[in-house]
Amino acid sequence: MNAIYTITMETIEPDKRKCPVHLSNVACTKKLVPVQDALYILSGKWKLQIILSLTFGIKRFKQIQLEISGLSPKMLSKDLKELEINELLVRRVYDTLPVTIEYELTSYGKTLKPLIRELHKWGTKHRKRISVKNY
Amino acid sequence: MNAIYTITMETIEPDKRKCPVHLSNVACTKKLVPVQDALYILSGKWKLQIILSLTFGIKRFKQIQLEISGLSPKMLSKDLKELEINELLVRRVYDTLPVTIEYELTSYGKTLKPLIRELHKWGTKHRKRISVKNY
Repeated sequence: MNAIYTITMETIEPDKRKCPVHLSNVACTKKLVPVQDALYILSGKWKLQIILSLTFGIKRFKQIQLEISGLSPKMLSKDLKELEINELLVRRVYDTLPVTIEYELTSYGKTLKPLIRELHKWGTKHRKRISVKNY
Repeated sequence: MNAIYTITMETIEPDKRKCPVHLSNVACTKKLVPVQDALYILSGKWKLQIILSLTFGIKRFKQIQLEISGLSPKMLSKDLKELEINELLVRRVYDTLPVTIEYELTSYGKTLKPLIRELHKWGTKHRKRISVKNY
């Protein structure tokens, strides 16, 4: 796999205009840019759900699709490719009839688990809050 | 503010078809649904960036827009409204000439800080990894 995340430091580095006025450019880069980096890789409705699905084990395309409600094959295919380019998962092709294709999280992909745990925690609290409001 | 997150429990609750085969429906609900809930509220490229911008203090519309590169006024307006509906921020209108409108995170909005910290951590590691690869 040759392709890697091709954004250079220059294109992410924010200029002064984008920083909160009370932050120096250095402080801004330190505080905002890493979050923007992470969101750049994980943005969209589906990527973290795909990663979550793969934390349960190796999956085929169809399995992932069945687990995520509302995700079209086209979008899944696009997102899997982007996640593969960013080395968060690997795609393995087996010479069977028909060809078997499996997806697995890389060890780098697994470093997203703490983030998913935070999402889980917040989502759990949010659901409780909404339940109290609705009933 | 009367509007609240209107999704009912029924529409989020996944049916068996969407669960990993090795998970019971109960386990699936426990593991997947909270993450889906969180992503439902925070999905999109901008919402977490808007929240991040407001963690630095009260802001006006234009200030937020200037801090987030590539965010159009139309999208910002839409996302601010959705975040307000979900009670993550408040919009305050002051009777000045011209009218002053400010946005502030609610205490509920501030509960997203640990999640943003995780994004920050992961983004920092990701940037280091890419730098090593590119240079």
